[in-house]
Amino acid sequence: MDAVNRQFRLAARPVGLLKPTDWNLTEEPVGEPAEGEVLVAVSFLSMDPAMRGWMNEGRSYIAPVRLGDVMRALGTGEVIASRHPKLSAGDQVTGLLGVQEYAVVDGDAVQKVDPTLAPLPVFLGALGMPGMTAYFGLLDIGRPAAAETVVVSGAAGAVGGIVGQIAKLKESRAIGIAGGSEKCRHVVEDLGFDAAIDYKAGDLGDALARQCPDGIDVYFDNVGGEILDAALARLARHARVVICGAISQYNAQEGTRGPANYLSLLVNHASMTGFVVSDYADRQAEAVRQLGQWFAEDRLTGVVDVATGFETFPDTLLRLFAGENTGKLVLQVAGS
Amino acid sequence: MDAVNRQFRLAARPVGLLKPTDWNLTEEPVGEPAEGEVLVAVSFLSMDPAMRGWMNEGRSYIAPVRLGDVMRALGTGEVIASRHPKLSAGDQVTGLLGVQEYAVVDGDAVQKVDPTLAPLPVFLGALGMPGMTAYFGLLDIGRPAAAETVVVSGAAGAVGGIVGQIAKLKESRAIGIAGGSEKCRHVVEDLGFDAAIDYKAGDLGDALARQCPDGIDVYFDNVGGEILDAALARLARHARVVICGAISQYNAQEGTRGPANYLSLLVNHASMTGFVVSDYADRQAEAVRQLGQWFAEDRLTGVVDVATGFETFPDTLLRLFAGENTGKLVLQVAGS
Repeated sequence: MDAVNRQFRLAARPVGLLKPTDWNLTEEPVGEPAEGEVLVAVSFLSMDPAMRGWMNEGRSYIAPVRLGDVMRALGTGEVIASRHPKLSAGDQVTGLLGVQEYAVVDGDAVQKVDPTLAPLPVFLGALGMPGMTAYFGLLDIGRPAAAETVVVSGAAGAVGGIVGQIAKLKESRAIGIAGGSEKCRHVVEDLGFDAAIDYKAGDLGDALARQCPDGIDVYFDNVGGEILDAALARLARHARVVICGAISQYNAQEGTRGPANYLSLLVNHASMTGFVVSDYADRQAEAVRQLGQWFAEDRLTGVVDVATGFETFPDTLLRLFAGENTGKLVLQVAGS
Repeated sequence: MDAVNRQFRLAARPVGLLKPTDWNLTEEPVGEPAEGEVLVAVSFLSMDPAMRGWMNEGRSYIAPVRLGDVMRALGTGEVIASRHPKLSAGDQVTGLLGVQEYAVVDGDAVQKVDPTLAPLPVFLGALGMPGMTAYFGLLDIGRPAAAETVVVSGAAGAVGGIVGQIAKLKESRAIGIAGGSEKCRHVVEDLGFDAAIDYKAGDLGDALARQCPDGIDVYFDNVGGEILDAALARLARHARVVICGAISQYNAQEGTRGPANYLSLLVNHASMTGFVVSDYADRQAEAVRQLGQWFAEDRLTGVVDVATGFETFPDTLLRLFAGENTGKLVLQVAGS
């Protein structure tokens, strides 16, 4: 095979917001699978806020990407050569394929998906890692009861949009926080939230007080910073705060801003619990089955925001941190 | 009765650290109990960090003390006149008696105590509100298992000293954080903690790393600020952080400092839960019985730090915030 594999490799540990010089776009011949491996032609790459953390030095819940390595990313792709007994050319798979056009990976490390069930990018969103993140964070940590008020930040994002939809499936009230009137419209009209609050328009504390007159029972946080503080100030007694992410803080050069209103936990006998989706690896099948069923029954909408052009990867990833995406942001690779 | 009742009344809402001008020392004739009430000669007043919060405007878990009112405080005293069917002159009681020498209170609002079981101030400490605070916070929220590592800040204080002792009774490792070598000696030698860390000597993060090589399973926080952040940075997986207080922050004029390391909750699947002891009002009897049993069996030490002179109340209360007390700080009223 004479094809060329383009790859984005980590050139520098970023300081603050990502810069073009943090990446090297390199080319190498497409590899060949060894025994047990498959060669995958990447079709879509998942753009995830967590990728920013993987670029930092120091071990977190997962080892950092090493300088010079192909950037780590989830993706979908088609098997074009297989030396794995359970996978064949033509199979569609998802997994950690990396920011490249072709990936040679261990066949045990990818999951086969059925493209007749949903468009491929949906396996990176509602039926993939963001869907599972929403499922476990909301149901295992948030545990909303019927008629309780669930507030989620980043509500128009990949995880937040699913959180609100699952909250509604559990008969809770779902209030989304998003930036801008179009995202707020989307959250209510397309995703079925009860209400949305535009944090860029007016005082967030006042808006939360209006929308949550009895306080917030479950707050699912994807953003951190001032929005987390505003939500803490409105907690109901025995509230559960789910810490899923803090996208407003990932590029902060002066260090993470801590939630100054954390003593609201004390006066309200409330809890704040963090997680990453890999904590629930042993329950993945349960989430995939339930999310798939809701999706098949048209009770769960999987919104994707598709960018094109492999070479646009650095700019496309930045769209996440500028809050420019609606739904799951993916980069189309094959054919672009 | 011609006796005079001296009282400390709230003169001003304090800004930052308490000032002498925040109080008025007033005198009035000793009152007479109405039907259902008792007249109590106050013997000891409890100095509690929570009192600082009660002086601020705005409702928290309890209404603020109104300007001009006698300052709210727990205390012990002797009933000297009773119009309550279950209390008689000579009975020893505890309850919210206020910062005054004589209190006329509803007989249903005080609890009779048996002074042969423990010295009276101990009913304001190990066998009182601080003991119950330690009991419920550690056992209901922290839930330490045998051989787990429990770290408590303010370890030489009224609550922290009990937390470490209960942790040892549950066969956990107890590590105390306190200020100064004498407090650290006290925590280990007198209270039986496994180790103590002097946060004023050297780097707290390094010391926690040395004392907690497998991380912190339960962190019981009484202080907030930098010490909370250092503990968050050392959490073990599935750690439980108990937010009991934040004495370092109560006088902060620039607002509470939020815990910048809160994303440690995320990577460690850890939780941070707050409470106040009144959340457990319906289980008070259980705590009183268990703490009393441990005390009677000499398995629980109730340390008290007795200040004298009713008129020293403003300065005595300030000793709490300067970290000058060891064990439960009380102000002796009767006979002083």
